[in-house]
Amino acid sequence: MKNSKPTILVVNDDGITAPGIKALIDVVKELGRVVVVAPDSPQSGMGHAITIAKPLRMDQIQLYEGVEMYKCSGTPVDCVKLAVNKIFKGKKPELCVSGINHGLNNSINVIYSGTMSAAVEGAIESIPSIGFSLDDFTYDANFEHCKKYIKIIVKQVLEHGLPSGSLLNVNFPNGGDLKGIKICRQANAKWAEEFDERVDPYKRNYYWLTGVFQNNDKGDDTDVWALQNRYVSVVPVQFDMTAHHVIPILNTWEFNV
Amino acid sequence: MKNSKPTILVVNDDGITAPGIKALIDVVKELGRVVVVAPDSPQSGMGHAITIAKPLRMDQIQLYEGVEMYKCSGTPVDCVKLAVNKIFKGKKPELCVSGINHGLNNSINVIYSGTMSAAVEGAIESIPSIGFSLDDFTYDANFEHCKKYIKIIVKQVLEHGLPSGSLLNVNFPNGGDLKGIKICRQANAKWAEEFDERVDPYKRNYYWLTGVFQNNDKGDDTDVWALQNRYVSVVPVQFDMTAHHVIPILNTWEFNV
Repeated sequence: MKNSKPTILVVNDDGITAPGIKALIDVVKELGRVVVVAPDSPQSGMGHAITIAKPLRMDQIQLYEGVEMYKCSGTPVDCVKLAVNKIFKGKKPELCVSGINHGLNNSINVIYSGTMSAAVEGAIESIPSIGFSLDDFTYDANFEHCKKYIKIIVKQVLEHGLPSGSLLNVNFPNGGDLKGIKICRQANAKWAEEFDERVDPYKRNYYWLTGVFQNNDKGDDTDVWALQNRYVSVVPVQFDMTAHHVIPILNTWEFNV
Repeated sequence: MKNSKPTILVVNDDGITAPGIKALIDVVKELGRVVVVAPDSPQSGMGHAITIAKPLRMDQIQLYEGVEMYKCSGTPVDCVKLAVNKIFKGKKPELCVSGINHGLNNSINVIYSGTMSAAVEGAIESIPSIGFSLDDFTYDANFEHCKKYIKIIVKQVLEHGLPSGSLLNVNFPNGGDLKGIKICRQANAKWAEEFDERVDPYKRNYYWLTGVFQNNDKGDDTDVWALQNRYVSVVPVQFDMTAHHVIPILNTWEFNV
């Protein structure tokens, strides 16, 4: 860790007024200078969406004493881009933390999650980045038991840095009495969608996306296993999506005929 | 390839009326039964966003003779989910193709692209999936030179299948006279954002996201290299985002203190 106080960018996807981001601010403001740039409305499920067809707003607001805060009309990824470009202006922060999300972002959820996509964008910008999520999607979720672990993980990242092209995905079981931190891989799981089909007052059909999480992975080295066994799961994530192991297979195909 | 005609799901992010999806339909309707489920409005840059805070519409329409088509109010990923759940109802199609995108989706763009995210969602659903994109973002883009290569690639995928957990990202240079198909990895590149800051009629600031593509990768095995050298680039993509090589590093850190 450098001797000077690190600058820490805080972002989320539940919106700037969510209790989860307040809990994260409370932890990291003890460790550095905090700048918050978060969506002005909930952006759950926005994945790595960016706003290109309409303009963005970003305005400074004051919610919590002594914390520099900006609300943004865009997605979580937009928040990171605007922060880097318009607030930090080339002098990047030492850390980007996202969350604490109200709801798990383990396994395949990393790809749907605005919380995790903001952290991924931080990593693309070469900022050491961490996403935090709790297994409780309610507004009244209790984040107290997460704080001790967030402090440990943030301190380790500030001390060691993170390998280029990687970031951390941290998930917490709900409730206290945790067994510690476990380094995991992303479980092989998916959502089985069940669209709730309804009819509007004008007799037209519409659908609500719902679903059931299906874990097809029996491994005891996964984030799903760790959370079920009351560990804090830490998965290193990368944004190079190349399936390198498939390249030699494709090279045997008859493409150039 | 099975003897029976394969069913092929076609999706995109530019919207169901885009010329690019028409070009893709024209190719694949010669190879199987085609079902189109595409957004009713442009959804570029939506990444892997899903719609959870509002209901979705999906309605059958007739644009092109002999093609079963549905327009959807959601994101490209929503289109795939609705298709699998409400149209195919458990009997999954043999192939999912997305595009042809008006504009490249090489390198890091795979993570921002609605076109590629739809193909990723197809692969999550265990459907062999391919995204196609052309280096021309204009409405009047000429897709003719892509068609021969799309046919070759689709036929190879229908014949061989794709390894579990992987899909293909195919990008075309603009204009004819191509050298063939090249299997590549995703180049290490990123966007350097340049927000265009303006003032609205009410004296409030707003921002347009713009940017410059920065390739930091000198490799001749990347999609950027292939496209610059007038090859069709084919990158195998995976949705397991675990940075497996980072796990042993994290296991040396002092997390449980």
